[in-house]
Amino acid sequence: IQKIMNVVISAAKDTKKLGKEDPRRIIHSFKVGLAITLVSLFYYFDFLYEGFGVSAMWAVMTVVVVFEFSVGATLGKGVNRAIATLLGGALGVGAHRLASFTGEKVECIMLGLSVFLIASMVTFIRFFPKLKARYDYGLLIFILTFCLISVSGVRDDEVLEMAHRRLSTILIGGLATVFVSIFICPIWAGKDLHNLTANNIEKLAIFLQGFGHEYFETTNDKNQENKASMDGYKTVLNSKGTEEALVNFAKWEPRHSKFRYRHPWDLYLKIGALTRECAYRIDALNGYLHSEMQTPMETRAKIQESCTKMSSECSYALKKLASGINTMTCSLPADAHILNAKAAAKKLKSSLKPGLWPETDLVDIIPVATVASLLIEIASCTVKIADSV
Amino acid sequence: IQKIMNVVISAAKDTKKLGKEDPRRIIHSFKVGLAITLVSLFYYFDFLYEGFGVSAMWAVMTVVVVFEFSVGATLGKGVNRAIATLLGGALGVGAHRLASFTGEKVECIMLGLSVFLIASMVTFIRFFPKLKARYDYGLLIFILTFCLISVSGVRDDEVLEMAHRRLSTILIGGLATVFVSIFICPIWAGKDLHNLTANNIEKLAIFLQGFGHEYFETTNDKNQENKASMDGYKTVLNSKGTEEALVNFAKWEPRHSKFRYRHPWDLYLKIGALTRECAYRIDALNGYLHSEMQTPMETRAKIQESCTKMSSECSYALKKLASGINTMTCSLPADAHILNAKAAAKKLKSSLKPGLWPETDLVDIIPVATVASLLIEIASCTVKIADSV
Repeated sequence: IQKIMNVVISAAKDTKKLGKEDPRRIIHSFKVGLAITLVSLFYYFDFLYEGFGVSAMWAVMTVVVVFEFSVGATLGKGVNRAIATLLGGALGVGAHRLASFTGEKVECIMLGLSVFLIASMVTFIRFFPKLKARYDYGLLIFILTFCLISVSGVRDDEVLEMAHRRLSTILIGGLATVFVSIFICPIWAGKDLHNLTANNIEKLAIFLQGFGHEYFETTNDKNQENKASMDGYKTVLNSKGTEEALVNFAKWEPRHSKFRYRHPWDLYLKIGALTRECAYRIDALNGYLHSEMQTPMETRAKIQESCTKMSSECSYALKKLASGINTMTCSLPADAHILNAKAAAKKLKSSLKPGLWPETDLVDIIPVATVASLLIEIASCTVKIADSV
Repeated sequence: IQKIMNVVISAAKDTKKLGKEDPRRIIHSFKVGLAITLVSLFYYFDFLYEGFGVSAMWAVMTVVVVFEFSVGATLGKGVNRAIATLLGGALGVGAHRLASFTGEKVECIMLGLSVFLIASMVTFIRFFPKLKARYDYGLLIFILTFCLISVSGVRDDEVLEMAHRRLSTILIGGLATVFVSIFICPIWAGKDLHNLTANNIEKLAIFLQGFGHEYFETTNDKNQENKASMDGYKTVLNSKGTEEALVNFAKWEPRHSKFRYRHPWDLYLKIGALTRECAYRIDALNGYLHSEMQTPMETRAKIQESCTKMSSECSYALKKLASGINTMTCSLPADAHILNAKAAAKKLKSSLKPGLWPETDLVDIIPVATVASLLIEIASCTVKIADSV
C-alpha cells in the first residue's frame, strides 16, 4: 500500500509540475473536451440527428483527431482533412460509377485493382520530402476516403449520398474544432516560434556571461546556481526539429497579434541555424571547462581581462538581440556591444605577442589560446546573427 | 505546354531518385496496397460481409492508419490501437450502462459530462513526456472510442454489440497489417538504427580523413570530390530526433536476424550522444577551414605531420569502430589506432615547446594551436565512443 501511495503522490507531483510549466496545457485539455461535447450534441437532439444519422460519428472523430495544441497545427490538419476527403470522395464515386457499367464480377476486380493502385501510388507520394512536411496527413486521408467510398459502393448503391454525408459531417467537425481552437484562448505556433528563437539566443548569452567567472574561477557564492543555468544552452543544440515543425504550423496561421499574414517565417529557420552553429562552438568551449589539460592559473590570468570582456560583451550583444526579437524592434544597441567585443578580441590578439610570454611553456598556453580563439569565433557568429535579425 | 512538360519531367526524375535512394519505399507502397486490398475483400464476399456489415470499414481504416514504414512503428501503433479500443470501449459501455439507470434527460447530461471530463483528462495525460513517446496514439484512440461508444448509446441500445463489432474488425485490420508488415520483406527499425549509428560514426571518420589534406593544402585532384563527402558530418549534428524515434520503434520489434529480443537499444542513444558531441567539435574545427584568421603556411607546416597523423589515426579508429558495429564484433583493432592517435597528440604537444618557435608571431600560432587542441579533444571523444561500443 505504501508503494501505491508513493506512485500516486509522485504522479500528482508530475501533473502539478506539468501544469505549472505551461498552463496552456490545461486550457488546451479543456478546449478539446469542450469541442467534443459540442459536436456530440448531434446525438442528443433529434432534429440534428435526423439529418446525418450514424454519420454523425465522423464529426466526433474529426474533432478528436484534428484538434492539436497550436492553432497552426489544427488548421493545417483540418484543411488537409477537408480537401483530402473532398478529392478522395470524388475520385471514389468516380471509380464506382465507372466500374458499375460493367458486370458484377468485373466490377469487383476493377475496384480491387484501383484500390491497390491508388493506395500504392499515394503511399509512395507520401515519401516526397516537400509533400511530407505539409500534406502528409491529407494524403493519408485521401487514401482512406477513396478506399472507403469506392469499396462501400459494392454494398450500397447510394454512394454519392454517403460521400456527401461524410464530407459534410467532417466539415462540421472541422469547423467546430477550428472555431474553438481560434476563439477560445488561442495558442499560436508563430508566437511560440518567436519566443523559442529569442529564448535560445538568450540561453547562449547566459552561458557566455557565466563563462568568464567559471573559467577564471573568480568564485562567488552563486557559482552552483550559475552552473545549472549555464547548461541551458544544451537544449539549443537539438532545437532543429522543433523549429521546423513550428515554422510549418506557423505558415498555416492567419494574421494574429503583432504578426502579419505573410510574416517571414523562413527567416526564423535561418536565425535558428546560426544560433545552433554558435551553440556548437559553445559546446566545444564548454569542453575546456572540464578538460583534462588544465592550464595553470597564472597563465590564464594574463588573458583574463580581455577574455572576460569579450565573452561578456558577446553576452550583452546576444541579450540585446534576444530582447530586440522579443519586442520586434531594430537592434541598434546590440551593435555597440559587438564593437566592444571586436575591440576586446583585438586587444586579446595583441596581448599574445611573443615577447610578453618569455618563461611560460607553450603547451600550457594552447588551451587558453584555444579558448580565446573559440571566443573570437563565437563573436563572429554573434555578428552574423545580428546581421540576419 | 512546355512548362507543364518540364514539371512532369522533373517530377518523374524526383520519383526515380526517391525510389533509387531507398528501394524499400517502393516495396512498402505495394505492401500497403496489398494489405488494403486484402481487408477490402470483406466487402466483396457475402459470407464475410454478413458478419460485420458496415463495421467492416473499421478494418480498412485500421490498415490505412496503422501501416507504417518499419515493423516496429506498425506493431507499436497496432498494439496501441487494439488495447486502447478495448479499454475505451469497455469504459464507454460502462458509462452508458451507468447512465441508463437514470431518466432520459439526466442520462444525456451525465454522458455529456463524462465525455467532457474523460476527453479533457486524457488529453492532459498525453502531455506526459514518457507516455507521449510510446502511447500517444493509444491515448488518442482511447478518447475516440470512449466518445463514440458512450455517445452512440443514446441512439442505439445495442451498445455492447456495437463495441464488440468495432473491436473485432479493428483486430482483424490490425492483424492483417502486422502480418503483411512482418512476413513480406520486413523493414526493421532496429536494423535502420544500427546502420544509422555506424554510418554516423563513419561520416565523422570521412571528415577527419579529409581534414589533414584540406587544412594543410596538400592538394590533389580529388579535392573537390572530397569536400562534398566531408560535409556529410553535418547531418550527424541533427540526428537526435531520428535516433530517438527509431529506438522507440525498435523496442516494439520482436527478435529478428542478428538482434535478440532484449537488444540494448538504449545503448544506441548513448553512442549517438557521444557521436554528436564529437560532431560539434568537428563543426568547430570545420570553421577554421574557412576562417578569416588564416595562418601562414610555414607556421602550419611545423605541426603538419603530427596533426595529419592524429586526424588520420582518429579517422581509422572511428572507421574500425563503425565496421565493428556493423558486423557486431568486438573492436580490438580500433584500440591500436587510438594508441597511435594518443602518441601523435603527445608528439604534437612536445613540438609546441617555446624554444622551437623563436621568430613566429604568437597570433599566427593560435588558430593552429586551436586546431591542434580541438583535434586532441576529438581524439578523447573517440576514446569515449570506443569505450561505450
